[in-house]
Amino acid sequence: MSFTQTDPNIPAVTETLADWIVGVTGNDIPDEVRREGLRTFVNWMGCAVGGSDHETVDAALRAVRPFAGKATSTVIGRKDRLDALHAALVNGISSHVLDFDDTHLKTIIHPAGPVASALLALSEMRPISGRDFLTALIVGVEVECRIGNAVYPHHYDRGWHITGTAGVFGAAAAVGKAIGLDAQRMRWALGLAGTQSSGFREMFGTMTKSFHPGRAAQNGMMSALLAEAGFDSSERVLEASRGFAHVMSDKQDWDEILSGLGARWEAGLNSYKPFACGIVIHPTIDGCLQVREEIGDRVKSIKAVRLTTHPLVLELTGKRTPRTGLEGKFSVYHAAATALLRGDGAPTAFTDDVVNAADIVALRDRVEATASPDMHEASVDIEITFEDGATLQKHIERAIGSFEVPLTDAQIDDKFTRQSALVIGEADTAALLKQAWMIEGLGDVGQVARASASSALGKVS
Amino acid sequence: MSFTQTDPNIPAVTETLADWIVGVTGNDIPDEVRREGLRTFVNWMGCAVGGSDHETVDAALRAVRPFAGKATSTVIGRKDRLDALHAALVNGISSHVLDFDDTHLKTIIHPAGPVASALLALSEMRPISGRDFLTALIVGVEVECRIGNAVYPHHYDRGWHITGTAGVFGAAAAVGKAIGLDAQRMRWALGLAGTQSSGFREMFGTMTKSFHPGRAAQNGMMSALLAEAGFDSSERVLEASRGFAHVMSDKQDWDEILSGLGARWEAGLNSYKPFACGIVIHPTIDGCLQVREEIGDRVKSIKAVRLTTHPLVLELTGKRTPRTGLEGKFSVYHAAATALLRGDGAPTAFTDDVVNAADIVALRDRVEATASPDMHEASVDIEITFEDGATLQKHIERAIGSFEVPLTDAQIDDKFTRQSALVIGEADTAALLKQAWMIEGLGDVGQVARASASSALGKVS
Repeated sequence: MSFTQTDPNIPAVTETLADWIVGVTGNDIPDEVRREGLRTFVNWMGCAVGGSDHETVDAALRAVRPFAGKATSTVIGRKDRLDALHAALVNGISSHVLDFDDTHLKTIIHPAGPVASALLALSEMRPISGRDFLTALIVGVEVECRIGNAVYPHHYDRGWHITGTAGVFGAAAAVGKAIGLDAQRMRWALGLAGTQSSGFREMFGTMTKSFHPGRAAQNGMMSALLAEAGFDSSERVLEASRGFAHVMSDKQDWDEILSGLGARWEAGLNSYKPFACGIVIHPTIDGCLQVREEIGDRVKSIKAVRLTTHPLVLELTGKRTPRTGLEGKFSVYHAAATALLRGDGAPTAFTDDVVNAADIVALRDRVEATASPDMHEASVDIEITFEDGATLQKHIERAIGSFEVPLTDAQIDDKFTRQSALVIGEADTAALLKQAWMIEGLGDVGQVARASASSALGKVS
Repeated sequence: MSFTQTDPNIPAVTETLADWIVGVTGNDIPDEVRREGLRTFVNWMGCAVGGSDHETVDAALRAVRPFAGKATSTVIGRKDRLDALHAALVNGISSHVLDFDDTHLKTIIHPAGPVASALLALSEMRPISGRDFLTALIVGVEVECRIGNAVYPHHYDRGWHITGTAGVFGAAAAVGKAIGLDAQRMRWALGLAGTQSSGFREMFGTMTKSFHPGRAAQNGMMSALLAEAGFDSSERVLEASRGFAHVMSDKQDWDEILSGLGARWEAGLNSYKPFACGIVIHPTIDGCLQVREEIGDRVKSIKAVRLTTHPLVLELTGKRTPRTGLEGKFSVYHAAATALLRGDGAPTAFTDDVVNAADIVALRDRVEATASPDMHEASVDIEITFEDGATLQKHIERAIGSFEVPLTDAQIDDKFTRQSALVIGEADTAALLKQAWMIEGLGDVGQVARASASSALGKVS
């Protein structure tokens, strides 16, 4: 259902949502949703370590260090420590900078960045148990995804980067839950979060894209802390005629926020990117990796690769001759060649070196792609021709990482390790990964943050 | 002129504006504009001291203190010191919390809050001369008001609090100018500022209204500092189809930003509120103050007051029996009575005590107001009837503080003193006021910030 601005029947959306956030307990969350929350956390931690040595993070740290307060909180994957607000900002940037994090597929929100970055940074200043942490994380993800559902797609189509705009609510809800705000203060926290909701899609392709989840984490945390201190705000930020949903969207579906709270869980629908590039290339990479498994050494005698894809794939990723790693993310040709020759779709597949490697370029030039409107966006047909004239067909109906084919825990581990080992080394990666899966048993969840920075290999800047 | 999203003829708005910001010098600014910039600064400083003991500021300080970094910067009017980012936030709140600051009448932006709060806080960390400070302040005000003009009124009507949404650009431009960003980094700073543009009108009537200029100051400063550190962003945030003007407004008048840069000065059009309440009551207060001057002791023998106003005045401020100071700001009856009996329209006229004082209530009940569509919004007719049957007429065509009747320097001094003396005492107020007018002679403008907190009377929290 959708209401007009002046409709007197608009329900008390903010109040109902705040009441739910305040009242829900860990026991109210079904086991399978808690399990997905844990996978969300592990995936986020791997991405945050993996992105932590990026030049974007270096630049952010140069800017914020002179203003940092008491160094309570870990900068994930590094030797730096910052106050909790700045740590939330930087960790949010790290977790998103490789575009390799999680996705709530209904809204294309990347849910963990704003929420986990805020919550973990604060938990090193105001310790909480791993169990309470996970509850707050799931609540935060639920809040941002429901709010996203209420305004998607109109809100996104208008140009808002929904991970930032909805994420700030998730961060405020999660931190507010962790610090035990009462219902009125939770409404204020949502109000303060909403009035900071921001981030343009125009920033895509620049460092500022990953600034959005970082700033949403920091601003959401600040909102909860201000509310705790008695700083008041509107108590109906979501539904008011000059509030979030009306000002930033032409669609307002309150039912998406209010119906089945505690019964239907958006936080149980999170998905995790298997490959470090736009989702439209994922079927091609998945298929080429499967072909590689099947043909072994014959990969060296591939004569031609023919892809049949939905037209959108070529529109978004049709770059024939990429020159840089970043351009490689927008080349289905490069992605196919690298999956076949290196077995790789991780960030290591999209470096300047790999994009310009002679063997990759040679195979890339022998990849052809044809757009067919009959092909589903999430599917691909791959035909391999070998030098001896033999051919091999591979159809991918839905790629790994889609809702239908979720990553297994082992695949999340593999993704984690491939990223993290490059930054903090294999031994610390193994220890961190183990601890990340076990947070529900930790009395102080801050331990896992500190474990992310324990290695001598961690970047000192 | 106005362009559609896809119009290829959209000019390079961000680039042109950034080039101008980088290139303009103090000598390029006409004397009368520099003078208005100085008045803008003095008025802002008085408001920031005047608001600094407000409970809103107390609450903000409780929340941010645990995260504050090196205490380089003065919290105006108080004993606290904070890092420059947090000082910008708090001083921006103080300067707006009484709704008594400045107004760019074309856009109802309150220009100084975001810009001066950022600039002065940073100048205590990275000292600059008073002359360079004033240049940067004027440039920042020019930028935010031009950007506001480009999207007003549509942007405001949609529900955006334009002081926050445009103010963040002003703060970024001013700080970027002060720290000497090159043209590319200035474009990045504007991009980072734009992508944080936020603040809903729904927050009016809560502490979060004054949070907007404070956060705009802090976020604008952060934008300039990130750009300085090499953190890149879009270089066309203003004009891009998914950038500021298209996402946050249906009106985009690029000419308002680009035409006559350096020739026509919006920063020369700033105005200063003479009274601590909504602008529609100002003609009534001005008229009643003039009557009081004229009649002296006969004010005690007023039998009735009859006001004839534009209908909007009663719609917005028609509260017949206000109970609190805040409600008093929405009562033209209270405002008339207090101006007549106390000669006051300052924040002291809108306290709970004054609103409930017996003499004020008695006269308030004898004030009548009639709406006439023939009366201009900015005018009023006042008729006083005395107990002896005599009458007195007063017509106000335009109130003091309007564009036509600007506050004199002496009136700015009086406004400053009435606010500041209550917080830091009369002696320090006199010294601070003197220094504020003389900033162009200061080698280190930070002196004036420190002078605002020098008194033993300054609030220690």
